[in-house]
Amino acid sequence: MIHRSEFELHGTGETDVGDVTERVAATVVESGVQEGLCTVFVAGSTAAVTTIEFEPGVVEDLKRAIEKLAPRGEEYAHDAAWGDGNGYSHVRAALVGPSLTVPIAEGRLVLGTWQQIVVLDFDNRPRRRRVLVQVTGER
Amino acid sequence: MIHRSEFELHGTGETDVGDVTERVAATVVESGVQEGLCTVFVAGSTAAVTTIEFEPGVVEDLKRAIEKLAPRGEEYAHDAAWGDGNGYSHVRAALVGPSLTVPIAEGRLVLGTWQQIVVLDFDNRPRRRRVLVQVTGER
Amino acid sequence: MIHRSEFELHGTGETDVGDVTERVAATVVESGVQEGLCTVFVAGSTAAVTTIEFEPGVVEDLKRAIEKLAPRGEEYAHDAAWGDGNGYSHVRAALVGPSLTVPIAEGRLVLGTWQQIVVLDFDNRPRRRRVLVQVTGER
Repeated sequence: MIHRSEFELHGTGETDVGDVTERVAATVVESGVQEGLCTVFVAGSTAAVTTIEFEPGVVEDLKRAIEKLAPRGEEYAHDAAWGDGNGYSHVRAALVGPSLTVPIAEGRLVLGTWQQIVVLDFDNRPRRRRVLVQVTGER
Repeated sequence: MIHRSEFELHGTGETDVGDVTERVAATVVESGVQEGLCTVFVAGSTAAVTTIEFEPGVVEDLKRAIEKLAPRGEEYAHDAAWGDGNGYSHVRAALVGPSLTVPIAEGRLVLGTWQQIVVLDFDNRPRRRRVLVQVTGER
Repeated sequence: MIHRSEFELHGTGETDVGDVTERVAATVVESGVQEGLCTVFVAGSTAAVTTIEFEPGVVEDLKRAIEKLAPRGEEYAHDAAWGDGNGYSHVRAALVGPSLTVPIAEGRLVLGTWQQIVVLDFDNRPRRRRVLVQVTGER
């Protein structure tokens, strides 16, 4: 049994952190799957998916750590070649990764109480992001 | 064919690195799945899952790199707001990620010889961690 | 419906970044799966899988960020114990992670236009890498 949904996120750029937990959970309910897997994937090379306690403090802390990983102000070979100015966005996205797989047990995502699924948009301009949710399992 | 197991890890806090390979492999054997996928997921926003050569040297080296990623001694907005003192734990967990999916071929996880599945507990106090193993595939 | 393929990569060592998108996409076509999941996994504890815009600039930028995460010149406890000299490779691999799961929709991987699947070989010597592609879903 497979069920797919898809939605768009409209980010403002510069490490937007969007909580998509409710939309993902709604797909699991729609699917009727009781036991299985739920994969969340963001299409594009300047965004990523992970989990976090979605509160403003942690979000700010995460942004600061990511800024250190691949600082905006440094020189990037990507920018020298293509002039996009988003070399740091590409590096950040590759390090965090675009996919997350969460088990489904008894019809629900098995997240911790303060664990939310977030899409990180690292690009340097507002983007429309295509987020895919693929649920597989048994009803 | 879907088979789920679940176990608890009791960490001491401060980047515990626990080798769970045997428990995960046992779930694969129990399931009888010959070809498929095995997802390992840790519930909670201050822990993560990855693979590593589980020997004390590498574990120490990994801890040092993670300490640099989100140092304990810095100020975190999460701590300022909530007083938990574990802002760095949240950042570390979000960067490494809570899930891992390993293929199953001929009834076995396809890990390399020196590649173990580990749960990293980044919290600043002892925790009970719920680890889920979801096996899907064909017998 | 499950379909597995496997291939070898021959890296030169030192953060080889190999684009495997075409080989993975070929496995999806072979499988005939229309809706499902495709997991790419690299066996071994000094390699990783992620996505990136595969152009020389971004690849260079990523390598520089990874060099900062776990610099080659530092001392590693793994090297002190085992003399392999690749302690940094192990740390890098554990932080990026060995697996990636991409949804399949209408018979195709749902990657972004400039998003390629890459295997990163962090070891300090040429290696043969076993890369597994496991496709699950409905035809």
